[in-house]
Amino acid sequence: MKKVTMLGAGSWGTALALVLADNHHNVTMWGHRADLIDQINDQHENKDYLPNVKLPESIEATTDIGKAVSDADFIIVAVPTKAIREVLRQAVPFITKKAVFVHVSKGIEPDSLLRISEIMEDELPSDVRKDVVVLSGPSHAEEVGLRHPTTVTSSSKSMRAAEEVQDLFINHNFRVYTNPDIIGVEIGGALKNIIALAAGITDGLGYGDNAKAALITRGLAEIARLGTKMGGNPLTFSGLTGVGDLIVTCTSVHSRNWRAGNLLGKGYKLKDVLEEMGMVVEGVRTTKAAYQLSEKYDVKMPITKALHQVLFNGQKVETAVESLMARGKTHEMEDLVNTFENQVK
Amino acid sequence: MKKVTMLGAGSWGTALALVLADNHHNVTMWGHRADLIDQINDQHENKDYLPNVKLPESIEATTDIGKAVSDADFIIVAVPTKAIREVLRQAVPFITKKAVFVHVSKGIEPDSLLRISEIMEDELPSDVRKDVVVLSGPSHAEEVGLRHPTTVTSSSKSMRAAEEVQDLFINHNFRVYTNPDIIGVEIGGALKNIIALAAGITDGLGYGDNAKAALITRGLAEIARLGTKMGGNPLTFSGLTGVGDLIVTCTSVHSRNWRAGNLLGKGYKLKDVLEEMGMVVEGVRTTKAAYQLSEKYDVKMPITKALHQVLFNGQKVETAVESLMARGKTHEMEDLVNTFENQVK
Repeated sequence: MKKVTMLGAGSWGTALALVLADNHHNVTMWGHRADLIDQINDQHENKDYLPNVKLPESIEATTDIGKAVSDADFIIVAVPTKAIREVLRQAVPFITKKAVFVHVSKGIEPDSLLRISEIMEDELPSDVRKDVVVLSGPSHAEEVGLRHPTTVTSSSKSMRAAEEVQDLFINHNFRVYTNPDIIGVEIGGALKNIIALAAGITDGLGYGDNAKAALITRGLAEIARLGTKMGGNPLTFSGLTGVGDLIVTCTSVHSRNWRAGNLLGKGYKLKDVLEEMGMVVEGVRTTKAAYQLSEKYDVKMPITKALHQVLFNGQKVETAVESLMARGKTHEMEDLVNTFENQVK
Repeated sequence: MKKVTMLGAGSWGTALALVLADNHHNVTMWGHRADLIDQINDQHENKDYLPNVKLPESIEATTDIGKAVSDADFIIVAVPTKAIREVLRQAVPFITKKAVFVHVSKGIEPDSLLRISEIMEDELPSDVRKDVVVLSGPSHAEEVGLRHPTTVTSSSKSMRAAEEVQDLFINHNFRVYTNPDIIGVEIGGALKNIIALAAGITDGLGYGDNAKAALITRGLAEIARLGTKMGGNPLTFSGLTGVGDLIVTCTSVHSRNWRAGNLLGKGYKLKDVLEEMGMVVEGVRTTKAAYQLSEKYDVKMPITKALHQVLFNGQKVETAVESLMARGKTHEMEDLVNTFENQVK
């Protein structure tokens, strides 16, 4: 039995706390909203973020971050990408022993262009952290809450740490694979939100499944193109955190990125969409960061570029889609070969 | 303007005839059901297979296969895999000049284990055929009928022929790419029907999107593993006819393979499902052929094997799924590396 702290009481943090409690670990959840924390402690439910799921009574929740993190073996960071630095700064002074840090978020920091594990290394002094691990894959929180079969990948620069996190979470419903390619895992997880936004747009425009399948296929190619240039293993993009996560995010009504894109496709303005959602839409920030990465690494990313035009330069969605469709006759393999050639290790 | 014959008046043949007529080619459709043929000629609609789509009046239909094929520049074969040999045998005596043959079907012949282009080469004497081309990709007929954006791949041993077929079909809504890897294109197209059946089963069992994404990801890996062993290019399985077609078939309610699997997952017997569908379910025959291929080429295909047990050996779907889930802790990359290593050209 390990002492595990879950920083964040959103959908995914709550669902993962349930997995950990099912595995008989000592789980403490931290969140800043007192009403949610009381609800988890008293009613064993998180009605705002994971409704209709009875949480194990062994899960304790607190608004006191110091109490939550002191003495933890594992600290799971399940807050929006934007809040990670701030939450870690609050937590660090109270950490009493070296812990394995796990993040379960998906994004890239705009401007710094750091992956999330790099942000965490940046914030966490070496006397409080053993290693940083990412847990990622095709996994809607709602379904994990219902204990439906789910598979994810644990990845880290340290394979020992990745395996410790695999051991922590794995059970009959929740299968955990390991992968040493943390760059590929983090890039695939982050950038799929861009394609999900774009898929929502084509659905909102009423284009149908054929168009969406083409978009996902070309989207995967451009993610892999960037990811391999950044040092990722091209095979990772064919795995759970690549094609797997892309599929689930682009084809499921649970996905908030897809939903945001869908509203954009129906003609709503970005500002109104973000208000309507009332939740963080990671894909919007990630589009900005990926656009910057494509320039930095000199990689062609036509879908990211088109979406960037829509989100930040006020281009009409129809014009952006036209620019993607209006291409000459093409040899399908050219792009793919440029992506993978001489890169398979 | 080319003289193009469409053999087959099902959903896909009818939708492709519409694309060709939109491109101002001289299109003759052949089918054996007189009522359907009359309906196409008189009412310019195919109510049984592509309802609510007004067909261009330039399309002529006939039940006379001799009249249909004589003098054609291109002969498109759009009949179920099972009927291809028989229909070609009927047509060959009437072919008056060498034509380019295009097939748009997806399957593998059980026992002979031939791909469809190989079946066609087997049936067509060299004095009637120039080349054999496959047109394949993520493309529901219903959406092509509505002129929604769609992308497909044209592939042949002869790149010149593949490009002629690209020129024949390409227009603003219907984008055609070329790919020289006909083995990869045909194997990806055929075997995705197996994974669609399996995806229908997990949906029928109520397992959700996480499980389905895992299934599709692992399914893609086993298709690529077999296809590369057979001589296909691993990159093809990351393209439109691989991951693209797999996504559209596994996630769309239009797919008859998914629908058949869905009924199996809900507990219906195979015999009853096939009766209920009243249409050909290619994935059932393909499962048998793929199982034979996996033995011939000594390739591990756990999903195909599990489905083979369900379809042909009466195993319960729950038992088959259990056998897939009950695996030890795994390194995600092992399978993928075995698939791709040293194979990228």
